[in-house]
Amino acid sequence: MKIAISGKGGVGKTLLASLLSKTFAESGYSVLAIDGDPDANLAANLGFPHPDEITPISELSDLIEERTGARPGQSAPFFKLNPKVDDLPESYSVKHDGIKLMVMGRIKRGGTGCYCPEGALLQALLTHLLVQRDEVVILDMEAGIEHLARGTAKAVDKLIVVVEPGRRSIETAYRICKLARDIGLQNIAVVGNKIKSQSEKEFLVTSLPDLEFLGFIPYDQALMDADLANLPLLDSSQPIIAEVKNIYQALVSRAQVPSTAN
Amino acid sequence: MKIAISGKGGVGKTLLASLLSKTFAESGYSVLAIDGDPDANLAANLGFPHPDEITPISELSDLIEERTGARPGQSAPFFKLNPKVDDLPESYSVKHDGIKLMVMGRIKRGGTGCYCPEGALLQALLTHLLVQRDEVVILDMEAGIEHLARGTAKAVDKLIVVVEPGRRSIETAYRICKLARDIGLQNIAVVGNKIKSQSEKEFLVTSLPDLEFLGFIPYDQALMDADLANLPLLDSSQPIIAEVKNIYQALVSRAQVPSTAN
Repeated sequence: MKIAISGKGGVGKTLLASLLSKTFAESGYSVLAIDGDPDANLAANLGFPHPDEITPISELSDLIEERTGARPGQSAPFFKLNPKVDDLPESYSVKHDGIKLMVMGRIKRGGTGCYCPEGALLQALLTHLLVQRDEVVILDMEAGIEHLARGTAKAVDKLIVVVEPGRRSIETAYRICKLARDIGLQNIAVVGNKIKSQSEKEFLVTSLPDLEFLGFIPYDQALMDADLANLPLLDSSQPIIAEVKNIYQALVSRAQVPSTAN
Repeated sequence: MKIAISGKGGVGKTLLASLLSKTFAESGYSVLAIDGDPDANLAANLGFPHPDEITPISELSDLIEERTGARPGQSAPFFKLNPKVDDLPESYSVKHDGIKLMVMGRIKRGGTGCYCPEGALLQALLTHLLVQRDEVVILDMEAGIEHLARGTAKAVDKLIVVVEPGRRSIETAYRICKLARDIGLQNIAVVGNKIKSQSEKEFLVTSLPDLEFLGFIPYDQALMDADLANLPLLDSSQPIIAEVKNIYQALVSRAQVPSTAN
């Protein structure tokens, strides 16, 4: 199963990605979590030790040059748009608590324009991960979803858009849905996060009447307190864990795959 | 004065950008607000009517082709890296309540790689706005700050990094500071947002000991309620407005420009 998670910055994409990864792994699935948001830190959320020491793929200049024929940051008129990537998940992922993680990193822009070799490598890698891998792939993405090309989008079983009770997260959800349909991605669902009241839940349902809601994760001050105290987030809130388990069940049952892989 | 505002998604960059724009405009300054975050909606926050009908610069294909010599989305081996842009602020800005606004839009990536003509135009435009314009320029940016090139960064009087009481916004602040120093931008300050208690304020100060705090914007449920009720945000919270006025005063007094322009 391939799940992509998007939404406005700050709504809780990385929290959902990490808790879903954990739930799938605990249920016996082989899980490959992809940090595709340069401003997120999926490794830290998943409790990886020394998360800042994981080098993102986009910063592996030697690898990028070897595979694309062009070095990042240097002007290169030609480079391979379909570099070999199928060995990268084994060589360039890190593992912790049964979850394999790959950190994609940021494609630099600006200065002399765009540097495309990194982009070509990341795009090929993402296509490989979504189209050809057998694991449950959980992709934490930017709101932009630009990395999903037309061919790749078809491999996504579910694009989950995370929203919070706030008008701007709804606007971003509409923008993501439009981008998704433009690239042929139809399986879109929503998860509400930071829900404090029934009226906030109703605000979300009323604001997105045409989309399926997979669940509503409650606001829990215990999560915020754990964050400020630098305690592990994944175990900090039982109400949140319980609702993510419901979301997992909804995903698994609708995809008609066995609820336990082993 | 040129002010760039950055920070993790969801921390309140656009709120600060819009309230600062309003405060400068009310104090008699000519203000040019730049929406440089494709996932933000500065126009809506500033109360512009029909904000979704403003076409971002990155989507003006005819203009991009005219100025760079290459059409977005088409493969072009050569295009102008320094297109003419000095007339664009007059022709492609919208005005409301004394504030001029330009919406930069998103540079598309993926698919066939990067499309650079848009990037070249936006970069040139941003450089012009920051380096050559006389207005107070307030730039609402992505966390990535990639659009600031080395030469442009020097023109920024203050990069304000917005943080909230949460470990991930602090991590992003560190990343932004590193990127900023890499491009020669030294004038960095912090604004804390969504502050609920003295201990949250202390958490921020302790987490960022080397940075100057311009202010601490309180959390106010009135702002959230106004948002859900689709009421104007800029007038919704007196405590927030009062603190942004303090921040404005700090900016103006430290820059040693007169506190009233007219």
